[in-house]
Amino acid sequence: MTSPIGARVQLADLPLREDLRGRTPYGAPQLDVPIRLNTNENPYPPPPELVADVAAAAAEVAATLHRYPDRDAIALRTELAAYLASSTGVPVTVANVWAANGSNEILQQLLQAFGGPGRSALGFEPSYSMHPIIAAGTRTDWVPTPRRPDFSLDTGEAARIIVEKAPDLVFITSPNNPTGQAIPLDQLRELIAVTPGVVVIDEAYAEFNEHASTLGLLEEFAEKLVVTRTMSKAFAFAGGRLGYLAAAPALVDALQLVRLPYHLSALTQAAALAALRHGKQTLESVAKLVAERHRVVDSLAGMGFQVVPSDANFVLFGRFDDAKAAWQSYLDRGVLIRDVGIANHLRVSIGTPDENDAFLAASKEITR
Amino acid sequence: MTSPIGARVQLADLPLREDLRGRTPYGAPQLDVPIRLNTNENPYPPPPELVADVAAAAAEVAATLHRYPDRDAIALRTELAAYLASSTGVPVTVANVWAANGSNEILQQLLQAFGGPGRSALGFEPSYSMHPIIAAGTRTDWVPTPRRPDFSLDTGEAARIIVEKAPDLVFITSPNNPTGQAIPLDQLRELIAVTPGVVVIDEAYAEFNEHASTLGLLEEFAEKLVVTRTMSKAFAFAGGRLGYLAAAPALVDALQLVRLPYHLSALTQAAALAALRHGKQTLESVAKLVAERHRVVDSLAGMGFQVVPSDANFVLFGRFDDAKAAWQSYLDRGVLIRDVGIANHLRVSIGTPDENDAFLAASKEITR
Repeated sequence: MTSPIGARVQLADLPLREDLRGRTPYGAPQLDVPIRLNTNENPYPPPPELVADVAAAAAEVAATLHRYPDRDAIALRTELAAYLASSTGVPVTVANVWAANGSNEILQQLLQAFGGPGRSALGFEPSYSMHPIIAAGTRTDWVPTPRRPDFSLDTGEAARIIVEKAPDLVFITSPNNPTGQAIPLDQLRELIAVTPGVVVIDEAYAEFNEHASTLGLLEEFAEKLVVTRTMSKAFAFAGGRLGYLAAAPALVDALQLVRLPYHLSALTQAAALAALRHGKQTLESVAKLVAERHRVVDSLAGMGFQVVPSDANFVLFGRFDDAKAAWQSYLDRGVLIRDVGIANHLRVSIGTPDENDAFLAASKEITR
Repeated sequence: MTSPIGARVQLADLPLREDLRGRTPYGAPQLDVPIRLNTNENPYPPPPELVADVAAAAAEVAATLHRYPDRDAIALRTELAAYLASSTGVPVTVANVWAANGSNEILQQLLQAFGGPGRSALGFEPSYSMHPIIAAGTRTDWVPTPRRPDFSLDTGEAARIIVEKAPDLVFITSPNNPTGQAIPLDQLRELIAVTPGVVVIDEAYAEFNEHASTLGLLEEFAEKLVVTRTMSKAFAFAGGRLGYLAAAPALVDALQLVRLPYHLSALTQAAALAALRHGKQTLESVAKLVAERHRVVDSLAGMGFQVVPSDANFVLFGRFDDAKAAWQSYLDRGVLIRDVGIANHLRVSIGTPDENDAFLAASKEITR
């Protein structure tokens, strides 16, 4: 076995941007263990009808893969708009929707268009850890703002800080990842009202949330509100990589100035359309997962754990003297959950009843 | 028909980055005309065996779309490395290869890691117009440097300018798009040798090029050389969106710090693997296209056009008094070619013999 070409070169030898030096890449460990409850995936595989439809769509698209895809993804955006309209009652149309390879790319495009050097973005932490990472990737100054010790958001204090810091973008995740709490619409309304720049409500877990979607505020705050969504969670489409947003048409136009042309492959567009056609069936898993979430929360509480209230498909719980050691104890029992870097806490995704049973059995042993 | 939500908001009302104001999005018109020779696609559709294999791969992957894809795309990178090794004789391995959604995303990641505010990238123009656009998207200063009036590169002068400007990145496209000329390896060697930072040799059209690939210089210049490729052209996979690069393993590691996690969908990875399995068959189109390129060049020259020498699957030709009017004349005859913004010139992609006949027939009329 010879070494790869160029193995003599070390990372330190390369003219990397100064602010990237010493960093490590983002990402949960991808381990092959029996019970994987670490990345908030939907544990229910796509139904056979959807699998067949994706295959048929891929076969149709494959015959023209030598051609570039529809750069504007009109058919897909039309169906995403129809889904949002039917599920929220807000008359979202194709002109309001934009799609990309996962909501990460959506967030990156937003930061490229409205952030960048000399501009700032504010978020309430702990929250989705990609927000500050993508801000850094676009050289946007990140303004971390703490939540309460119980991870809830003090809306009055949050509004005060937004006014004081006057950031170019505000990120609010509701339900919040990795803590789980949702923010009631009237409180979000207060925060959006005082924000001077663009406000991004990250609704990746909206389908699991019993509170109303922020989409209902879009007409009122069209000059600044963006609602981001993903098909990775409720739609069971994490492997398909499809994130999207709803906003004013002018904001969608603005993103055309920074999007990479043909960023969404013909296969992605066709497969996402197939997944949307079977959306009703896929989304039946949501009620099951919410019911299981209640069971997991109650069981953990019954064992003496402190459980953070959740409106999502995961639960943050503690307290562990040593979260890292506890994470390893779960893994030793074949259960992969997530150490999200919050002291004394771990996060578990809600799985199938069997997976949750395995997690709860491990929890009982670990709490002893 | 009511207006979309937020239609009252105009682009000028949004807090867009100052340097984006007044810009228009990149992109050739996507028009539905009989003969499309405007985006350097491979005109030959994927063979039926490949279509069937993509469909089978999609069906297999679809069953696990609820799970995130392999974040590091190991299987795909292994096969891309094997293709590069077998086609160039250079022992490229998985550790040398990185892949993304089109070479545009590869270029963006390179500029995020090694460019950015306060840093600069230099290119020899006219060249691939996305280079300066992606540089702007990452806030990297762009240093445009002219080619000779005949679009060839004066290597001595280019080397002098690289030394003088000392950019953080240099982009060299060979064969160059939209002009077609390749740069011989010994001349590229001189340019790479004098470059102080990272040098990106954009080999999107490598398969059509009779000159040797720059991959042969990778071991010698591992501390700075990156060779980018795409499956959009020779591999007839434009709709699949798969770009890649070869470089030292440390450089691949550096890109992990800026890549969005799970950027490559499970479907993209599976479909690209299927396309690579049928690569030998797909790449048989290359010889046909090169032969047709010779025929198109000779025919255009015979009609009195000036044709820029090409090592790619397209040809830049002129001179037109009014390139925009000439472009419209082609379109009026059902032939869509490309006005790339070079005065008095148009670019035509090489199509099937029938498509080229239609283009040549239109050319004969237009030259009159």
